[in-house]
Amino acid sequence: MKKIFYPESIAIWGLSNRENNIPRLMLENLIRWGFTGRLFGIHPKGGESHVDGVKMFKSVAELPLVPDLAVFLLPARFIPGALREAGEAGVKRAAVLSGGFNESGGQGEKLAEELMETAREFGIRFMGPNGLTVANTANGLCLPFTPAFKPPQGGMSMITQSGGMGLFLWNLMADENIGLAKFASIGNKLNITEVDCIRYFGEDPETKVICLYLESIPNGRELIEAASEIDKPVIVYKSNTTSAGNKAAMSHTAAISNNEAIIDSAFERAGIIRIQEFFDFISAAKAFELPPMKGNRIMAISPAGGFTVMMADLCETQEFEFADPGPSFYEEVAKFTNAGVINLSNPLDLGDVYDPSGTASAISLALHNENVDGAVYVTQNPQMPKDDDVFNKMFKTDISKNVTGAIRSSGKPLAACLYGPTRTINRLKKNVTVPIFSSPESMIRILKKQQLFHQKKSEPAFKTSLPRGIDMDKASAWIDSHTGTCGEESLELLEAFGIAAAPNKTATTEAEAIAAATAIGYPVVMKVISPDAVHKSEAGGVLVGLPNENAIREGFLTIQKNLESYKAGARFDGVRLMAMASDGHDMFVGGMVDDAFGPVVLFGYGGIYIEVFQDAQNALAPSNEAEIRMKLERLSSFKILEGTRGQIRSDIEGYVDLIHRVSHLMASFPQIKELDLNPVRLLADGSGCLALDARCRLG
Amino acid sequence: MKKIFYPESIAIWGLSNRENNIPRLMLENLIRWGFTGRLFGIHPKGGESHVDGVKMFKSVAELPLVPDLAVFLLPARFIPGALREAGEAGVKRAAVLSGGFNESGGQGEKLAEELMETAREFGIRFMGPNGLTVANTANGLCLPFTPAFKPPQGGMSMITQSGGMGLFLWNLMADENIGLAKFASIGNKLNITEVDCIRYFGEDPETKVICLYLESIPNGRELIEAASEIDKPVIVYKSNTTSAGNKAAMSHTAAISNNEAIIDSAFERAGIIRIQEFFDFISAAKAFELPPMKGNRIMAISPAGGFTVMMADLCETQEFEFADPGPSFYEEVAKFTNAGVINLSNPLDLGDVYDPSGTASAISLALHNENVDGAVYVTQNPQMPKDDDVFNKMFKTDISKNVTGAIRSSGKPLAACLYGPTRTINRLKKNVTVPIFSSPESMIRILKKQQLFHQKKSEPAFKTSLPRGIDMDKASAWIDSHTGTCGEESLELLEAFGIAAAPNKTATTEAEAIAAATAIGYPVVMKVISPDAVHKSEAGGVLVGLPNENAIREGFLTIQKNLESYKAGARFDGVRLMAMASDGHDMFVGGMVDDAFGPVVLFGYGGIYIEVFQDAQNALAPSNEAEIRMKLERLSSFKILEGTRGQIRSDIEGYVDLIHRVSHLMASFPQIKELDLNPVRLLADGSGCLALDARCRLG
Repeated sequence: MKKIFYPESIAIWGLSNRENNIPRLMLENLIRWGFTGRLFGIHPKGGESHVDGVKMFKSVAELPLVPDLAVFLLPARFIPGALREAGEAGVKRAAVLSGGFNESGGQGEKLAEELMETAREFGIRFMGPNGLTVANTANGLCLPFTPAFKPPQGGMSMITQSGGMGLFLWNLMADENIGLAKFASIGNKLNITEVDCIRYFGEDPETKVICLYLESIPNGRELIEAASEIDKPVIVYKSNTTSAGNKAAMSHTAAISNNEAIIDSAFERAGIIRIQEFFDFISAAKAFELPPMKGNRIMAISPAGGFTVMMADLCETQEFEFADPGPSFYEEVAKFTNAGVINLSNPLDLGDVYDPSGTASAISLALHNENVDGAVYVTQNPQMPKDDDVFNKMFKTDISKNVTGAIRSSGKPLAACLYGPTRTINRLKKNVTVPIFSSPESMIRILKKQQLFHQKKSEPAFKTSLPRGIDMDKASAWIDSHTGTCGEESLELLEAFGIAAAPNKTATTEAEAIAAATAIGYPVVMKVISPDAVHKSEAGGVLVGLPNENAIREGFLTIQKNLESYKAGARFDGVRLMAMASDGHDMFVGGMVDDAFGPVVLFGYGGIYIEVFQDAQNALAPSNEAEIRMKLERLSSFKILEGTRGQIRSDIEGYVDLIHRVSHLMASFPQIKELDLNPVRLLADGSGCLALDARCRLG
Repeated sequence: MKKIFYPESIAIWGLSNRENNIPRLMLENLIRWGFTGRLFGIHPKGGESHVDGVKMFKSVAELPLVPDLAVFLLPARFIPGALREAGEAGVKRAAVLSGGFNESGGQGEKLAEELMETAREFGIRFMGPNGLTVANTANGLCLPFTPAFKPPQGGMSMITQSGGMGLFLWNLMADENIGLAKFASIGNKLNITEVDCIRYFGEDPETKVICLYLESIPNGRELIEAASEIDKPVIVYKSNTTSAGNKAAMSHTAAISNNEAIIDSAFERAGIIRIQEFFDFISAAKAFELPPMKGNRIMAISPAGGFTVMMADLCETQEFEFADPGPSFYEEVAKFTNAGVINLSNPLDLGDVYDPSGTASAISLALHNENVDGAVYVTQNPQMPKDDDVFNKMFKTDISKNVTGAIRSSGKPLAACLYGPTRTINRLKKNVTVPIFSSPESMIRILKKQQLFHQKKSEPAFKTSLPRGIDMDKASAWIDSHTGTCGEESLELLEAFGIAAAPNKTATTEAEAIAAATAIGYPVVMKVISPDAVHKSEAGGVLVGLPNENAIREGFLTIQKNLESYKAGARFDGVRLMAMASDGHDMFVGGMVDDAFGPVVLFGYGGIYIEVFQDAQNALAPSNEAEIRMKLERLSSFKILEGTRGQIRSDIEGYVDLIHRVSHLMASFPQIKELDLNPVRLLADGSGCLALDARCRLG
């Protein structure tokens, strides 16, 4: 990757002096940005000696050296051939900017295959196609071809699946005083992916914050592993979250859609920060310029009462805790007030402090208070007639040095939002070394993410281990002996993983059935076993509450008869007898294999209303008990398990253990494509939980 | 109200040349804004002949005329006296800016009482206290005292419970090219309220859009009546939505909190637009400068593929429908494309249209397409080196005239968002006569609200009438004969309103009970009637499934015994016998009286898990069947009623009718403070719905 971002020589294919030659715009960006490596132009037609002074060659073979980086912005159909030529000349790195590959379907897909094949053959790593590829403010590298000034140098590196979105951000950054480190517009990411870039930026000393605009996450496990292994914040805006978005993304970068809930779950484990508004990239970059917020106790401050109310709402919504700085703090602040008409509390309304040095002191006192972990401050710098009145003093006095000093000496964040005419505010943003935010909503939302990020990174890394009492050999044997969709016999697989089902036995004859029922204890449930009756109830294959031997005898016949009339010639493999489970709360546990993130365990409110309330959580498999417990508490139905309306608390620990075991089962056997335990009954007397029904699909 | 906004003479109390005299800043704003009415200063100490040339008087009685408006910015304790003096001199309108009244508690509350009392005595209408009161760009009136330039004149009028928040907005407006009409900072709104202001602005020809920042809505019914009666959009940002917000709001403007779900419901009926981000005031003002979006079919357009994906997500999330402009539209647009590598669909990616006149034509074609109701467009105006290359042409060519023309000639909205350096963008905003939005998120969110507003205003006004079969006299008689909390006997009240309960009868003796049970039909449920057993189950007062006479006899004794052992000496008023209801889905219907909005009906998923899933909707009472039905469909549990997993569809119409009746019951009898029907069982066979239990509280 280093050669991609720090090439010492670049060859640009298709360069020419002709009107509307786009590669030439790229060359001019390189010149404008001060790139000092060697530059060569290649055009097979020849006929031009140089373009903007850069010498032209008819083929790469003629160059005086093998260029570190080959850059292609030609019609797609010429690119595989050009890459082959480069490969033959010994080129190992390429940037492919052209569109017209797999995002356009048909012929484009074939070209994409050819491109990848050629790269493999010559061991070439390339970025693109259909991306603006790379830029680097450290060495003046700029391959994006839209004429651009060099943005200020700074710590934000950007990985984007849309070049346009990336360039939009450059334009915002200058105003917001956020500097760019490196830029990777990965387009269809056929070779170099966002994961390669994250790993590289993770080690790049220039990069402080890694921002990603993604339309698809095809290799989610790798993404979260890469993000977990580095200590820098990784901030993701993921579009293509709706069906309309998917239609657009398919034709834009051939991006398929993801399961959004699984992305959120995976990101949470990895500490990846997901933003929902594009501008939050800017706010996030700002938030990470501040010292870490090491705890959750916030102080909200404003000279406008309305903003204290708004900030109180926002902080509570973001689940900040309001710091209690103690009475001596308020006594100190009261000394700076004028009329004494405003109650001092948190949020702190400084509307009665007319002297800006009082405001500065209050901010410093707040940050240095041991019960405060960070603060937010909203004020304005209005356009006002210049005078020596109290409001000019209040709003126009520069307290930024005091505020910066308070931040630096306390080592705590103060996030400040300043309203006012943008010309004034933009100038102020450039004149201070701490960030100024543009809206209270975005600021408080992002400060919370900063706090959670640091909290996450201070915790031990995610660990899990197999629960006790798992008979892996038995489970393996069961899986080897089954295929396709399996019904209740899946309970046997679960048993091998230490998951309790209601006591049950199979029987192929009436006599066996009676023996089984006697062993289990009456009353029992009897269910048909037949590959031809996946929906047992519809086949008349479920009889409940059978009280005695006679009922078993009759039932055995009835079930066979029902099966035959459900489907003539259906195979009858016997019946399963199961103890009648006592009352309880029906939850579910499921497993699936996500295309991007692999095995996942799901759990939540079960029974027949799964789809109605959609009260479910998920975790990447394998999970661990702490993660499952945390997510379980987010369910609405957790209140049921805790015992609402005077009911007994359910066996929550047992349910967590069961989910944990299923997560390891899914992780241990990739052959299990789907698994459904529904209901898992948490008994009303709190004595345990049982899987009452199960099915799985092996593939 | 007119005299408040258009006074021909103003007297300012407390004016002086002394340092830090705040009334003087107010006077200077009046002068700066070009207010041409007569101005007088009043200071009881005397000694100054004039302030900024304005003649000073020792008391209002000395003035040469009775001023139209008296303005007070004195310490709170002097204000009731000063107002009395003004009243005695014949003043009828006042603005009270000072804080220190009911928002500060204690002595302040007494002063607030005095203030209101004095105003009543002299028939004075006043705005405030604790507000910046009024400004009017039409006549240069500006009472807010922070030194301020006059904002551009325009159609946005603002009503704010926080002066600071209002002034913040002024600063944003200039940059965003949004003009101000009138400003009302109503503070503690002890006399003139937001409702008075809405009614006045509704008739004010200068006002096109009414924006409100509110921390509390004490008189919600009046608010929505006022908003319903005018055709102008009313846009509300309501803070104080959390407990922390409430604490802050109490000390800021003595604002108590509201039930947010009821606000949303009431606003929806009135067509009031609620925004959740402060900056959306600006976006809303812009959206209403555009022609109305008369249908829901949107076209999303951008030259950046990434933005088409993002817009697709945003439009779908906002429940826009993607317009299908038909193949001939795409054929036309294809003529403007360059390489033909981008699929044309909706969202429309114009990344391949390099000639801006092609973009302009595509926009015009889209707006004039009969299957398109409106469009959104996101592009950029980047900072780039000036040249004659294709990108300079693409991004720097001004197509605003074409876009404006397309909007004006089609009569449809095109909402455009432009990214770029703010200096460039702000200049552009000022140079065009159609709005330019600042973020795609805010733009699309607000355009949806614009469309819904126009849809709402095109529908017939909300109407409701009493359902048939209501015995109002019987209901009245029942209410007159009951007090306090009533249990199941409330079913009789419901019956008078045509609401079916399971067949039931009361009995005070064993013989009566047997006769009742026989009439109802076995099996029956027997429940105790006793003022000492509100929770009947806990008192052993509910017996279910009684199959015959014997069981009734035994049960009658058991219930009496249980009651006595539950509470010695408890009053036994007999039993209620009720038919055993067959299986079904348990929903609930409730009624309550909201402090701000009066009677409200609530409904949703019932049984014991009401609090768990909180799957509920509400409507102001009386509601009508269409409104109830619309809201019912928003419930998750609506899927249950429709018949999920092969179940029979429930009697949805019956449930709607029942809710409708309860809404009229609540509206007809304000004495009913709370009403709970839970469960209301929608029978599994779809044959109807029955209230199985009820309680109410009269007050």
